[in-house]
Amino acid sequence: MIPLGGIGEIGKNMTLIRYRDEMLLIDCGMTFPSDEMYGIDIVIPDMTYLVENAEKLKGVFITHGHEDHIGGVPYLLKRLSVPVYGTALTLGLIQNKLNEHGLKAELRAIEPGDRLQIGSFRIEVLNITHSIAGACAFAIDTPAGLVFHTGDFKIDYTPLKGDPIDFQRFAEIGRKGVLLLLADSTNAERKGHTPSEKTVAATLDNIFATSKGRIIIATFASNVNRVQYIMNLAREHKRKVAVSGRSMINMVNIASELGYLDIPDNSLIELGRINSLRDEEVVMITTGSQGEPMSALTRMASDDHKNVKIKPGDTVVLSSSPIPGNEKTISNVVNKLLEKGAKVIYSAIADIHVSGHPCQEELKLIHMLLKPKYFVPVHGEFKHLHTHAEVAESLGMPKENIFIMHNGSVLNVSQSRAEMEKKDVPAGSVMVDGLGVGDVGKIVLRDRKILSEGGLIVVVTAVEKGSNYIVSGPEIISRGFVYVRESEDLLNTARDIVTQALEDAIDRGLTDWPSMKSAVRDSLREFIFEQTKRNPIILPIFMEV
Amino acid sequence: MIPLGGIGEIGKNMTLIRYRDEMLLIDCGMTFPSDEMYGIDIVIPDMTYLVENAEKLKGVFITHGHEDHIGGVPYLLKRLSVPVYGTALTLGLIQNKLNEHGLKAELRAIEPGDRLQIGSFRIEVLNITHSIAGACAFAIDTPAGLVFHTGDFKIDYTPLKGDPIDFQRFAEIGRKGVLLLLADSTNAERKGHTPSEKTVAATLDNIFATSKGRIIIATFASNVNRVQYIMNLAREHKRKVAVSGRSMINMVNIASELGYLDIPDNSLIELGRINSLRDEEVVMITTGSQGEPMSALTRMASDDHKNVKIKPGDTVVLSSSPIPGNEKTISNVVNKLLEKGAKVIYSAIADIHVSGHPCQEELKLIHMLLKPKYFVPVHGEFKHLHTHAEVAESLGMPKENIFIMHNGSVLNVSQSRAEMEKKDVPAGSVMVDGLGVGDVGKIVLRDRKILSEGGLIVVVTAVEKGSNYIVSGPEIISRGFVYVRESEDLLNTARDIVTQALEDAIDRGLTDWPSMKSAVRDSLREFIFEQTKRNPIILPIFMEV
Repeated sequence: MIPLGGIGEIGKNMTLIRYRDEMLLIDCGMTFPSDEMYGIDIVIPDMTYLVENAEKLKGVFITHGHEDHIGGVPYLLKRLSVPVYGTALTLGLIQNKLNEHGLKAELRAIEPGDRLQIGSFRIEVLNITHSIAGACAFAIDTPAGLVFHTGDFKIDYTPLKGDPIDFQRFAEIGRKGVLLLLADSTNAERKGHTPSEKTVAATLDNIFATSKGRIIIATFASNVNRVQYIMNLAREHKRKVAVSGRSMINMVNIASELGYLDIPDNSLIELGRINSLRDEEVVMITTGSQGEPMSALTRMASDDHKNVKIKPGDTVVLSSSPIPGNEKTISNVVNKLLEKGAKVIYSAIADIHVSGHPCQEELKLIHMLLKPKYFVPVHGEFKHLHTHAEVAESLGMPKENIFIMHNGSVLNVSQSRAEMEKKDVPAGSVMVDGLGVGDVGKIVLRDRKILSEGGLIVVVTAVEKGSNYIVSGPEIISRGFVYVRESEDLLNTARDIVTQALEDAIDRGLTDWPSMKSAVRDSLREFIFEQTKRNPIILPIFMEV
Repeated sequence: MIPLGGIGEIGKNMTLIRYRDEMLLIDCGMTFPSDEMYGIDIVIPDMTYLVENAEKLKGVFITHGHEDHIGGVPYLLKRLSVPVYGTALTLGLIQNKLNEHGLKAELRAIEPGDRLQIGSFRIEVLNITHSIAGACAFAIDTPAGLVFHTGDFKIDYTPLKGDPIDFQRFAEIGRKGVLLLLADSTNAERKGHTPSEKTVAATLDNIFATSKGRIIIATFASNVNRVQYIMNLAREHKRKVAVSGRSMINMVNIASELGYLDIPDNSLIELGRINSLRDEEVVMITTGSQGEPMSALTRMASDDHKNVKIKPGDTVVLSSSPIPGNEKTISNVVNKLLEKGAKVIYSAIADIHVSGHPCQEELKLIHMLLKPKYFVPVHGEFKHLHTHAEVAESLGMPKENIFIMHNGSVLNVSQSRAEMEKKDVPAGSVMVDGLGVGDVGKIVLRDRKILSEGGLIVVVTAVEKGSNYIVSGPEIISRGFVYVRESEDLLNTARDIVTQALEDAIDRGLTDWPSMKSAVRDSLREFIFEQTKRNPIILPIFMEV
């Protein structure tokens, strides 16, 4: 077993199961860039090891359709050809990505209850409850023993739609013997049990029962069952539904085409037509529950939405919790909505969202049902993996049977022993910036950081070929440093200082370019810092004429 | 009453009380820049109105020594001269700032129980419990009636040190009649009651009782009473204390000089000497509980600290909660400490921090004790002010007596009426970047943002004076765009394209500089976007020779 992503991080999940010369990949996700990754669009796992072993890779099994499980698929399929297995909704979302990338691939639909034989692997697909429809766990039987991967899950005894987990089947698998368990660690720090989606439904019931004006609900597009519930409530309360935001429209289309979403007849209305209805006849379902800057909800809050102007009487629901890092943008949206007189319902003041991941008591139940011999906590930062390991130990599992791994580390497991290999395989983060995959490195990021903090000053000087005597300039141009019109004196003095430094260098015979460049850079850096306490990038350019 | 900062935001608190031609200022804080304020160091309130009315300003009263209440003082005193009043610790912290700025000022010590007459204002200083020692509320009696400013507070019946609030005196003031209440709204969204500092003490007791190795505690330097408690525990458990981190060392020095901190004899040890003691004899108190990148704790976690190497057996305590926006940096520190084998105790898993601000039941008590006629919620984002107003309404206060204000709005209050003026006074945010106060504006920030996302490309061309024919170049230099060594082909083609665009422009007689600049910019932008889907800043420069 080789985790290639998702260990020590929440994001870009990708796990390799290897038996002799055959490999199966579970998930192929992406993650969002961290703050210091200036200008980066997304981050995907390093796929070197997969490309090097392309002929051994027999299939990619996707647990569910969240970005951190499917976002890397197009980048994998650009580099090798392999069939991708997933439930209908998962494949629908992947197909949508492949279309955007202009790719074709072999997508094979599976569903809970399916058993597939692929080479030496016998895979059983199991239904699991999570915050997206069509989520699976995989029981992968190999000649060495059974590997069980939970995927992302929670234990929801009363899901809004679809079945709860088949506990009998899980117990049967456990009784037959699980060699290795890989299980979701996202919420391992939290005691107790994640509440059911039904608690959100109860809050929504109450909102529909008591709101007189328009209702605007922002939630995760992928939570199809919650969207379905809202649509059902709308019909009950004789409201029409307008769908807003690109990813929400997308998801509603895909999910309804594939039968995951059952949209009542005549219940949808174009967003542009909502003003033809009375306020009490309108529900909007929209993106932006994380305060994303370009999302529909943020634009509504900023009075920047083509069709929707927030007004007193509106009830706006943020059916989400802040993903760490988004607290401030969400607060901004809530503040602006309140200032416009809307009633705003959000997670700090109401039970309007539940997590899709298991807390400690749920983890304990899964461990007790499956009774694995060996255990690797996955899907979490180190602190989550560490706490999940402690939970397993608290159930009596020997410490030496639990492995906290790193991306790229290799665990060899047999019935009699489990052992980490000394040598890792290549793994890590690959940054995607526009069309560039992996071409932005440390130097470019460092320059972007310095540019963002202090801008830059370009100093151009034309010099005579051969002698390097100044023919024209130096001219000083800046961006992101100071407001030029208010800083003419500063920049004029800077030019004098550079001129003097260049003349001094020439007088001392230092007319090679490296010397002249450092004369410019050093003199200017000192002057600028003394005057402003700022450190812009200084870029000396010499033109030979 | 004119709020000049701290309304619609958590930060840079500053409130003006005006009676005819006399003014008192309460607090003068700063705030930290938001994410889109690239390169900005701090943000202070706009002081225009104060400077314009300098002769009317009779004094600045500071409630306590947190940055969001004192950070603007040096910038105010650079522009006008006015006495500053505060308790000894507050003034000690201000003096420290003034020294850094090379400023002198008239600082006047006050303490709870003091009553001062300043012009028409009669000010009573009241002790209040908060997360820093020496915190006050002010009851300001004016000929128009009494204004009560709570400052930041919590209701702690059992503070670790010092007195609880004098509820009898608050009730007396309430009975005599409070015209206008200004009260802290930070935690107004939270139901119930903020726990006492005693709950943190209990957790610390337990940590000292059970830890065998070194104990490293990161907390807010300003929480002097918690630092005192840790020092007392250290003595009880026969451990020496090493203090680490510039702001912690600073605070320990100031607080012990002023008598707020009572350091037991022989209890301190230099950080460089801790390795001469056995592990069970060591406690370190340090900064970095918010995961600040350069802090002592972050450096320890990254194995980058001169004196301290984290090892198994160490117990590291983050005695803090994440300030919104810091969740990720704190997680990084926790993860790294756990990876090094330390036991880590943090707020997600233990009761190791309590807020310094009041929850709803505390707000209710203050309102009921003071029974104000009019009320302005302060110290909070709009959502906090809004919820605080709802709390006041729930107690029976008429809605029309509650005013949710903006920075710069003016509320005129008399015994018979309160009314907002139609016209605001100047107020807002002033960004400080190095030595520049207010000189970085929208254009510079926009450029820094674009530079941070895509870097820049400079295109330099030397042209003949008069004719503008190309003499040398164009040359292309980039920073923060691509790694140049791996992108030679791209940059070479870019040069060809620019050359072609310039030649076309000259052929069409478009040899004025604006035309030639847009020829460069347009051709290059299109090519670069098509090839990379990136949008660097393009900076065409022409040199006349």
